[in-house]
Amino acid sequence: KTLCSKISQHSVFTNIVIVLILMNSILVGLETYSAIVERYSSWLHIADRILLWIFTIEILIRLVGSKSIGAFFKDPWSVFDFIIVFGGHVLVGGHYFTVLRILRVLRVLRAISVIPSLRKIVNALIITIPSMGTILLLLGIFFYIYGVIGTMMFQSIAPEFFGTLHASLLTLFQVVTLESWASGVMRPILAEDGSSWWYFVSFILIGTFVIFNLLIGVIVTDVEK
Amino acid sequence: KTLCSKISQHSVFTNIVIVLILMNSILVGLETYSAIVERYSSWLHIADRILLWIFTIEILIRLVGSKSIGAFFKDPWSVFDFIIVFGGHVLVGGHYFTVLRILRVLRVLRAISVIPSLRKIVNALIITIPSMGTILLLLGIFFYIYGVIGTMMFQSIAPEFFGTLHASLLTLFQVVTLESWASGVMRPILAEDGSSWWYFVSFILIGTFVIFNLLIGVIVTDVEK
Amino acid sequence: KTLCSKISQHSVFTNIVIVLILMNSILVGLETYSAIVERYSSWLHIADRILLWIFTIEILIRLVGSKSIGAFFKDPWSVFDFIIVFGGHVLVGGHYFTVLRILRVLRVLRAISVIPSLRKIVNALIITIPSMGTILLLLGIFFYIYGVIGTMMFQSIAPEFFGTLHASLLTLFQVVTLESWASGVMRPILAEDGSSWWYFVSFILIGTFVIFNLLIGVIVTDVEK
Amino acid sequence: KTLCSKISQHSVFTNIVIVLILMNSILVGLETYSAIVERYSSWLHIADRILLWIFTIEILIRLVGSKSIGAFFKDPWSVFDFIIVFGGHVLVGGHYFTVLRILRVLRVLRAISVIPSLRKIVNALIITIPSMGTILLLLGIFFYIYGVIGTMMFQSIAPEFFGTLHASLLTLFQVVTLESWASGVMRPILAEDGSSWWYFVSFILIGTFVIFNLLIGVIVTDVEK
Ligand code: NA
Ligand code: NA
Repeated sequence: KTLCSKISQHSVFTNIVIVLILMNSILVGLETYSAIVERYSSWLHIADRILLWIFTIEILIRLVGSKSIGAFFKDPWSVFDFIIVFGGHVLVGGHYFTVLRILRVLRVLRAISVIPSLRKIVNALIITIPSMGTILLLLGIFFYIYGVIGTMMFQSIAPEFFGTLHASLLTLFQVVTLESWASGVMRPILAEDGSSWWYFVSFILIGTFVIFNLLIGVIVTDVEK
Repeated sequence: KTLCSKISQHSVFTNIVIVLILMNSILVGLETYSAIVERYSSWLHIADRILLWIFTIEILIRLVGSKSIGAFFKDPWSVFDFIIVFGGHVLVGGHYFTVLRILRVLRVLRAISVIPSLRKIVNALIITIPSMGTILLLLGIFFYIYGVIGTMMFQSIAPEFFGTLHASLLTLFQVVTLESWASGVMRPILAEDGSSWWYFVSFILIGTFVIFNLLIGVIVTDVEK
Repeated sequence: KTLCSKISQHSVFTNIVIVLILMNSILVGLETYSAIVERYSSWLHIADRILLWIFTIEILIRLVGSKSIGAFFKDPWSVFDFIIVFGGHVLVGGHYFTVLRILRVLRVLRAISVIPSLRKIVNALIITIPSMGTILLLLGIFFYIYGVIGTMMFQSIAPEFFGTLHASLLTLFQVVTLESWASGVMRPILAEDGSSWWYFVSFILIGTFVIFNLLIGVIVTDVEK
Repeated sequence: KTLCSKISQHSVFTNIVIVLILMNSILVGLETYSAIVERYSSWLHIADRILLWIFTIEILIRLVGSKSIGAFFKDPWSVFDFIIVFGGHVLVGGHYFTVLRILRVLRVLRAISVIPSLRKIVNALIITIPSMGTILLLLGIFFYIYGVIGTMMFQSIAPEFFGTLHASLLTLFQVVTLESWASGVMRPILAEDGSSWWYFVSFILIGTFVIFNLLIGVIVTDVEK
């Protein structure tokens, strides 16, 4: 146990794990090129199996080396590592081929849990989310109301954009990013319903203003820290 | 009266109202799916009627429970609640079908008047509007001048964008959001009038700079608070 | 002279001028609607003539009422007012019909010189321009280099975007506003020249970063005041 | 040596170099107009040769005038000047025609090394890059994971956008700039794979949020200075 604890805190251990994660990253990258997959299919499979087992041993060393099992699972990054690695064992051989591949890609994310400076920055980003709570709720209400009104009014005019409530919400997300909101979405609708401009203009004015204030809130929270 | 006052300030009362607003929200969402409306038309109508009456009772309790009728109507949120709910009674049975539906959707906004943290944040957003007054006036003058010049110059070249003054103003709003300003608006005009680029480039440079300063003003006002 | 000075500083005088500028604004707006111009052509012409003469008298009162002619022309806003109004006399009757119309539209800008709060904010905006000097020069060099390289490399592939140096500079302005830079500009070129992506990606990364720092500089200058 | 040192620090020397760089800039600009190149080909060539030799003499004066050769090459701007100018000699007459032309264009960048205020601002911009290190690494991991998943999922549906891993990364860069992400990229894919919206929406939400925090970090670093 003491040995495991010593190993898991040694910088060489961390560096080896970083190299392995890098290799895993290159591996999942190579697997997207069908020409490479066809030729080296078995090699890629073997490399993936070896990496999975090394990662398993790494997690076990860290698990044994921690103060207690409870202490290990208290750290959300350890839980994340555990799920990512052991999911690869549980789901193997089944029908979960796509899930398994995505899990293999997500192992790249382990770089965050292993490199301290990355973990620190991601923790800092996640901490700002609760402070956005109320304004995100406000933004949600705002989107929902415009989504329902948009569906009511433009359902028959522009079914590809406002056919259903969820289609409208996606369209409103597109509009708030200002992507083709006029050329693609508003102008064809305006040709049918000449007063529809107020819907889009008011949505953009309010939406961008609320999002702008949301971001200012994040800055102020950041600066105060 | 004292009873009404006690009820209206009780947290259980607020929580019930929040749940009812949530139910109203789901209801107006469901009503956008024509398959659901066709099958459960009468149920939806009954649910809406019940909700409207509960909201009416809620407003009456709050009205009776307030210090005086004047005190109740001094709070703009109470006035908003009153109009949203009693509008549903006044307009019912008439030809105002669309207005009535939009009113029903706007009841979702009552979440803002009922949840204190939301009300606080919306009040904070509204308070920043007057401080933008002068720069909004400047922006208005700027848009108007470019709108008139654009209509004068491109009326016959691009009638769909600059055919009338109000069409030009809408196009300029599109341009200031940088949406298809070049590919959609400027390039076809440039093919006819080779010197028109200065109109768009100067408008974007000045427009984004003024809006940027408008937003900085909001931040500075915000930080000073 | 003392009378003129007294008049020109009286708030009633300013308010009358504001109302007249508003009337002038409405007038130039109405003139963009060809149906109105056709029917009320002579009336609009008379109204314009009357407004021009009233503005002339206003400027003369202010000129006489100022300490000296030199003091009057020292204020750039007075010079602006003088040019805008007297330009309308000098150019009348000639072939400068479009210039004359634009001059009439620019009279709307007189609102800035007359309303103190607007003048103050525009002065504040203009003052920030010199502090942007060096970074604007940097941006100019950056645009010029990419413009020349772009013209050299894509002249024959995409003549509508990079045919000449000035066409390239306009295209780069479009790209830096992120408008259709990929779908409209890069992807057709990429189909011919597979390595052209570095040109656009590096331009956007550097360009947006420099502009971002330009704006930060403006904020810092603003906050320090 | 002392003479060279005196010359190279004299403001007249600097001003002459600035004028020459300006002339070089005009030259490379003129060379993009094929009509001018055809007519004045030999003149442009001679002017370019003369400028190159003057720049060579300038660099030599500065090199001799510096404390030591080591001191000269310690300043990255001197190294930059040296490479830009002497590259023009080394590559001349060979097959490196395009490289040579780009080198000639990059001589415009010498304005930065010669004008102190420009050099100062570029140094300030470059200094902020290391402070972005960790978050750029995070952004890289984030892009890589979405790139691999996107290639896996949309390779066959949208080969022009997600055909290979590098095509996906370019598409993701387009998406994060919000350029045609919905109208051009997502909507055609959504027609084939109805659940693909989460891929784009989550990518934009996380991507813009991380970039926003990256920029805030730059501001905070800036303000602290
Ligand atoms: Na855009
Ligand atoms: Na676009």
